[in-house]
Amino acid sequence: MTIYLEDIEVGQTFSFGSYPVTREEVLEFASRYDPQAFHLDDEAAADNPIFGRLAASGWHTAAMVMRLTVDYWQEIGLTTLGASGVDELRWLKPVYPGDELRAEAEVLARRVSSRADRGVVTFRTTAFNNHDEPVMTQVANVFIPARPTESA
Amino acid sequence: MTIYLEDIEVGQTFSFGSYPVTREEVLEFASRYDPQAFHLDDEAAADNPIFGRLAASGWHTAAMVMRLTVDYWQEIGLTTLGASGVDELRWLKPVYPGDELRAEAEVLARRVSSRADRGVVTFRTTAFNNHDEPVMTQVANVFIPARPTESA
Repeated sequence: MTIYLEDIEVGQTFSFGSYPVTREEVLEFASRYDPQAFHLDDEAAADNPIFGRLAASGWHTAAMVMRLTVDYWQEIGLTTLGASGVDELRWLKPVYPGDELRAEAEVLARRVSSRADRGVVTFRTTAFNNHDEPVMTQVANVFIPARPTESA
Repeated sequence: MTIYLEDIEVGQTFSFGSYPVTREEVLEFASRYDPQAFHLDDEAAADNPIFGRLAASGWHTAAMVMRLTVDYWQEIGLTTLGASGVDELRWLKPVYPGDELRAEAEVLARRVSSRADRGVVTFRTTAFNNHDEPVMTQVANVFIPARPTESA
């Protein structure tokens, strides 16, 4: 089954995923993309008044949430054409090794594009840790294909 | 030399970095965090009306720009305490293997936090490819330590 733009309704919600955050992956991502000491070193993280102990890069959290999202899209038969951007990306709480992430998403808006073959859907996504604390939110604009017309 | 909150001025600009985007890394990031077909497969990417050919995940671009940024911060002696979030993250143009990214940043705002030991600096960062086309922009709020007082 394929889900098209027309099948998505404003107010619709989705709940999905489970991503175990490992120390190895936290260190690997940080060493490559965000080598600040509190993402790499236990002592430096303990000195940081916000993190307190080794925590994942916020960009790593965003990437893990993207993986949860793409897996879910594939599960429900939703393909996208990409995304134009994200607003209100907020890192609400540190994400620590040993946490397990899940996500909830809500459709905030759906609009037809100037191109007849696609539209833009605005999703607000919230990621939670395994204590049900929200750790990250974002609002993303995603291009979704319209249902092909019979003449197409 | 260490740069503190008080040393950063609104309107200040920075230009930095060079990050070669490789096909191998594009595929590796996408397979792990954003396994949509147009980030993994040449044919699927050619069919995508926005990308046209294999392109990096937008989250990969954000991660590469973070690496450029952290390297530059370390070069100039700026340490942060982390970031609360990002607004207006925009993927303006696809980033392709073979591109080389650089970045420019501008200080939009600087404000003292309720904690005397730190403040929040708002940076607008623009990433360019080697054709000087802007490929990504974002506005980030970053916690920066205040200069320690003599009594501290």
